[in-house]
Amino acid sequence: MGSVGRVQAQFMHFGEPLALHSGGVLPEYTLAYETYGTLNADASNAVLVCHALNASHHVAGVDELGNLGWWDNLIGPGKPLDTERFFVIGVNNPGSCFGSTGPMQTNPASGRPWGADFPVMTVEDWVEVQVRLVQHLGITQLAAVLGGSLGGMQALAWTLRYPQRLRHCIAVATAPNLSAQNIAFNEVARRAIISDPDFHGGHYQLQGVLPKRGLRVARMIGHITYLSDDVMDTKFGRRLRAAELAYSTQAIEFQIESYLRHQGDKFSEYFDANTYLLITRALDYFDPARAHGGDLAAAFEGARGNRFLLVSFTTDWRFAPERSREIVKALVDNRIDVSYAEIEAPHGHDAFLLDDPRYHGVMAAYFDRVAHDV
Amino acid sequence: MGSVGRVQAQFMHFGEPLALHSGGVLPEYTLAYETYGTLNADASNAVLVCHALNASHHVAGVDELGNLGWWDNLIGPGKPLDTERFFVIGVNNPGSCFGSTGPMQTNPASGRPWGADFPVMTVEDWVEVQVRLVQHLGITQLAAVLGGSLGGMQALAWTLRYPQRLRHCIAVATAPNLSAQNIAFNEVARRAIISDPDFHGGHYQLQGVLPKRGLRVARMIGHITYLSDDVMDTKFGRRLRAAELAYSTQAIEFQIESYLRHQGDKFSEYFDANTYLLITRALDYFDPARAHGGDLAAAFEGARGNRFLLVSFTTDWRFAPERSREIVKALVDNRIDVSYAEIEAPHGHDAFLLDDPRYHGVMAAYFDRVAHDV
Repeated sequence: MGSVGRVQAQFMHFGEPLALHSGGVLPEYTLAYETYGTLNADASNAVLVCHALNASHHVAGVDELGNLGWWDNLIGPGKPLDTERFFVIGVNNPGSCFGSTGPMQTNPASGRPWGADFPVMTVEDWVEVQVRLVQHLGITQLAAVLGGSLGGMQALAWTLRYPQRLRHCIAVATAPNLSAQNIAFNEVARRAIISDPDFHGGHYQLQGVLPKRGLRVARMIGHITYLSDDVMDTKFGRRLRAAELAYSTQAIEFQIESYLRHQGDKFSEYFDANTYLLITRALDYFDPARAHGGDLAAAFEGARGNRFLLVSFTTDWRFAPERSREIVKALVDNRIDVSYAEIEAPHGHDAFLLDDPRYHGVMAAYFDRVAHDV
Repeated sequence: MGSVGRVQAQFMHFGEPLALHSGGVLPEYTLAYETYGTLNADASNAVLVCHALNASHHVAGVDELGNLGWWDNLIGPGKPLDTERFFVIGVNNPGSCFGSTGPMQTNPASGRPWGADFPVMTVEDWVEVQVRLVQHLGITQLAAVLGGSLGGMQALAWTLRYPQRLRHCIAVATAPNLSAQNIAFNEVARRAIISDPDFHGGHYQLQGVLPKRGLRVARMIGHITYLSDDVMDTKFGRRLRAAELAYSTQAIEFQIESYLRHQGDKFSEYFDANTYLLITRALDYFDPARAHGGDLAAAFEGARGNRFLLVSFTTDWRFAPERSREIVKALVDNRIDVSYAEIEAPHGHDAFLLDDPRYHGVMAAYFDRVAHDV
């Protein structure tokens, strides 16, 4: 199994305004994307990979900064999503902060950074821009759309809005909508950011500051929900940082504290606060059953031509297996072709990014089917 | 079943310095407490009730401000902890902010508020002051010590340190120590408070401000962990506050958001930030097995003369039934008399404060036994 090697971001500009779900408009936008492998002659081997909260178009290989793609363990020559067979596209969603148009960039109407004025986008809006990108790459129908977590929601939304534009939907560690508890965690993270005095109503760039305190807390909260209770106990347990307790409310006593603070600090150095708000809102809003009176099966009626793989992880308490099973049931109710794997893995929600042999075995087998199913 | 009626806080001052677990000293302190019912002639019917993070000595009845005690549904004439039979004592722990000596009060050494200089206290330190209070009330041996959550840890610590001073230990919705995940949630809450610019290193009173932003976020995080996923879905689900979505990152869209913000706002008006740090640290530090190389059964060897009731709730994911079962196992390993009830209740950790008939039935039956077991 190899690496796709050195990769370089590409950029595509769209001058046509995009009408958004919210009623707003994104006047123009640029998408950052990467591709790996070669598009075949009839453009039938393309796989789109959708990203989750804090990821980007840099999915595989090594970029200019030497960073490995966030799903590099899955994607490359001889890997489960084999770039010898497939032409793989990673795209950064608008509103994010890794190269596509987002709140840190200039609002053409004001000449100043968008900041909090960047329009709220939904999962469905992202699918619209992804459709445009794929069209411009000369692809009429994708072999598959793949995503984990929020990325899985985008893969599902493709089948709901453009079922004829893809054959397979592969949705990993995802849910048909957020539970009240999921929304609650998002809301606390947002309040931490918004109540940071350096947030300035979302126009912190104009003040030359960044709401890093809020971002740190937001990331720490998120991180707890990505890990399972078990893996936290295995990795950290109640282990102390020093030989003795300091008996201090502010010092670091336990290794788990040190780990979380480190995660928060790192995140606050590279992630944009407005992006955090926008993407958590896209998560909150996703709810395809709503337009059908809560009937998820009715939502999937149009997707009868698509085939699905759903994967969940036993210790994922953020998007628990029960949530994937709701989707499986809605598909089965429509007699839609669906494979479902519930992987016993200790790592919680994070498992979808890790290299578990059973998980990757399922992915490899399914992509083998996708390759033969043209 | 009646109420204990109007109650009034009492105060007891202790001029003798208290040596603390941390190596520090609390030079003097006042305890706020309440009592309900009548101490019998041989002082054998006293029950001490220990409080958790945000509660106080006001356990039952109606105080001067018209507030109902936090465990009033359990305690009163004819109630499970029957004040016609028992003399019940509620005490506010030092470090808290409801009347006993704490960070908001004056440090005799400096003449200024203690603030962040208030010494860190452990569960065991609280037991020490509770022992002194009980002695001064003329009680040599308590019929029972009762507590839920952090209060349950205090009840357990009584049997470990002063087994001859109580007959029964009743520990509800508690754990033998915090898991890494529990500590992680505490740490995020602390970081939210400490990184609030109004915290001023814990000496905010001197600046005439309060770190309310941090307290709000801390309380919101805590609140999520008190409720079960199920009860959140039942109470709030994905219900919107308005008829339509606003598509805003900062407005309130979902009822769960509104509820959490309200809880945070309310809490930040009455709770002290330094107290939050101190009490979460006491939670983190509690770990009676540590002194015995992690062997919880060894920790309970001295408690062979005590009898125990442990109660847990099926949907409590903060202190899950498995954690209570660890305690039960350690007691059984010592052939200690223990009753254990695992109550099927939907309310998560909060269930211990609610009036569930099965739960209160168990409590009533056990206190009936305590009353006959003198």
